[in-house]
Amino acid sequence: MATATLEELSVTAPAGFTAAGIAAGIKTNGKLDLAVIASDRPASVAAVFTTNLAQAAPVVLSKRHLAANGGNARAIVVNSGCANACTGSDGMEHAAAMAAMTATGLACTPGEVLVASTGVIGVKLDMTKVAAGIDVAVKALTRSGGPLAARAIMTTDPFPKETAVEVASASGTFRVGGIAKGSGMIEPNMATMLGFITTDAAVPPALLQRALKAVCDDTFNAITVDGECSTNDCVFALANGASGVSLGEADYSVLVDALRQVCEPLAIGIVRGGEGATKLVTVTVVGAASNEDARRAARAIANSPLVKTAIHGGDPNWGRLVAVAGRSGAAFQLEGAAVRVGGIELFRDGTPYDDRAPQAAEYLTGTDIAVEVDMGTGGVGRSHMWTCDLTADYVKINAEYRT
Amino acid sequence: MATATLEELSVTAPAGFTAAGIAAGIKTNGKLDLAVIASDRPASVAAVFTTNLAQAAPVVLSKRHLAANGGNARAIVVNSGCANACTGSDGMEHAAAMAAMTATGLACTPGEVLVASTGVIGVKLDMTKVAAGIDVAVKALTRSGGPLAARAIMTTDPFPKETAVEVASASGTFRVGGIAKGSGMIEPNMATMLGFITTDAAVPPALLQRALKAVCDDTFNAITVDGECSTNDCVFALANGASGVSLGEADYSVLVDALRQVCEPLAIGIVRGGEGATKLVTVTVVGAASNEDARRAARAIANSPLVKTAIHGGDPNWGRLVAVAGRSGAAFQLEGAAVRVGGIELFRDGTPYDDRAPQAAEYLTGTDIAVEVDMGTGGVGRSHMWTCDLTADYVKINAEYRT
Repeated sequence: MATATLEELSVTAPAGFTAAGIAAGIKTNGKLDLAVIASDRPASVAAVFTTNLAQAAPVVLSKRHLAANGGNARAIVVNSGCANACTGSDGMEHAAAMAAMTATGLACTPGEVLVASTGVIGVKLDMTKVAAGIDVAVKALTRSGGPLAARAIMTTDPFPKETAVEVASASGTFRVGGIAKGSGMIEPNMATMLGFITTDAAVPPALLQRALKAVCDDTFNAITVDGECSTNDCVFALANGASGVSLGEADYSVLVDALRQVCEPLAIGIVRGGEGATKLVTVTVVGAASNEDARRAARAIANSPLVKTAIHGGDPNWGRLVAVAGRSGAAFQLEGAAVRVGGIELFRDGTPYDDRAPQAAEYLTGTDIAVEVDMGTGGVGRSHMWTCDLTADYVKINAEYRT
Repeated sequence: MATATLEELSVTAPAGFTAAGIAAGIKTNGKLDLAVIASDRPASVAAVFTTNLAQAAPVVLSKRHLAANGGNARAIVVNSGCANACTGSDGMEHAAAMAAMTATGLACTPGEVLVASTGVIGVKLDMTKVAAGIDVAVKALTRSGGPLAARAIMTTDPFPKETAVEVASASGTFRVGGIAKGSGMIEPNMATMLGFITTDAAVPPALLQRALKAVCDDTFNAITVDGECSTNDCVFALANGASGVSLGEADYSVLVDALRQVCEPLAIGIVRGGEGATKLVTVTVVGAASNEDARRAARAIANSPLVKTAIHGGDPNWGRLVAVAGRSGAAFQLEGAAVRVGGIELFRDGTPYDDRAPQAAEYLTGTDIAVEVDMGTGGVGRSHMWTCDLTADYVKINAEYRT
């Protein structure tokens, strides 16, 4: 099977998974707004959740289900158009009802269903619409439903994020697929990053959790659009073993590589589709005292409005990169520091190379930008972050959506 | 003397201080770009510096002078138009030369002169122009020179920041004056917050340092325009005793109050003049587990692009405030949390009050906005930050200044 076809199958590329995306009427514009992803057999499950202390009802409920279900799940039910956040005890009842309705349709227990929501904060779900929608979606589950599910979880994402890979390992050939949604915050209150990953390998829950956490740190947790962190963020992974391949401790690096092949393009897709974004920016920090320091500096640079506006304006403004690296909280030695934009060294060891600025400015007219800062400590710590430029459109989208 | 006249005298309102602001040609547009503030006798000195590890030459030099001069100084020399940052050993020589030239003109030692610079990063000072400028400025020092100095330290500030007060205390009547500049970053690389405070009270250096630090924490360190922290930020305070009033340990609270009366309006002025700003926003956080937690949450809210764009758009978007408070790293309990905009409670104990949104939206059409978040922990921690709205003009100023 060609890669393109695999990608088209997205989250349903792995064997034993079905999905559906339907319009339940939660969004007022009639677009797809409810998705179900199901495994035809019990699957191992792993999850990574938002660190925000203001957690939406579906996050609280899914955490409970994960703690109670022994690392197994059958399905994920997701709605867009309403975050079911800051909705009090009604919100918890609604999230529980979504799990129960899906479980009834699939003949499993509610504890085997994970729930996610994205959309407006502080608005309650219309459960009449949700109930009818879940009923329709469960009946519509198909092996080719991945792309519809990818579209049903979007809020203001400009395009769906979906991918799948087939991995030939020593333990056998298996597939990993996934869909994600990103940061479109005109919905209006706050959007959410959601990622749903499937694999037809059999993986013990603890191993799956460890691998998912490691991969998320380098992918979904290495992106930023505006430094915000939602009340609803979550990434779920289901491993159902339908391929007949079993991965164990010895296959850890195979599993991590496979998950990364799916999570990385999904994460980068979220940044490309960031609000108002016109450029994807890869920030690499080297020469840091530790990997943690490197991540701290990379995060500060990736969230700096001065850096993001300079890149938007095509300005090879190495001074802003130095200044942000210096204030990031990470160890920094100006004397040994360096800044490279697209591989063009603009500053090193206290010396600016302003004659290279025109070349760097030309490079910055592109849409895929790489900037690298050496922290000058002589250490080997390194890290990366993906971000986008900050544009007037970002401000317009978030300030003027009522007009 | 009326308050208005005092304000007009700005940093030269206290007795024994003179100042000058002249055009040395460092700025290419012919505007004022070099200032000297001098005391006619040795003054106690205190200082607060940027925490950025990429420190400009004048910051490094002034720290050395402070450490070596026993807490005494005679003058401050400042240039705008060039930050003298990331300029290597030449930059250190230039900063030292600025101090030496000023000291020659004032017949004091170079160690009694503090140096500050603001403007472009990575460009060297034209010392021919600077030397001639210092010569002119020292000869131009007058008791009414404060306002000219206030203008000479501006980069793209839309207006000068200057104020002065007269304080009648049990220990006698004394004055405090000050000037500041803020965040105009089209200069182009990165601007700087500078604050220069004078008083004609006599204050031991250690006491002055303690009071200045405490006041800065609640004023200059409680403001943000875009979360950036410059390579050149500094606040200097000189106390020369020319009023005949001596303040000792028993007068600590009098001193702090007096400094606050000057530093607070200067700090707020910097926010009002922030790049693209149309609104001054006072963020208050209460109900936090500690004052430190409250400050952490207030800082996160004050720097949140989603909050700042919502306020710009006149949107009473309490969900964004809850979400940022929850991700701030401070303890947060959604169940007991509350959000008030202009005193209008929009969310409390899990219940939204959306019927009040129109009233809050009307309030947000003003230019002075207060938002308050109760962290819901039941604690008594509280703090405040001043910030401004995030506008498309901010992006334009920082992305498109080359056009």
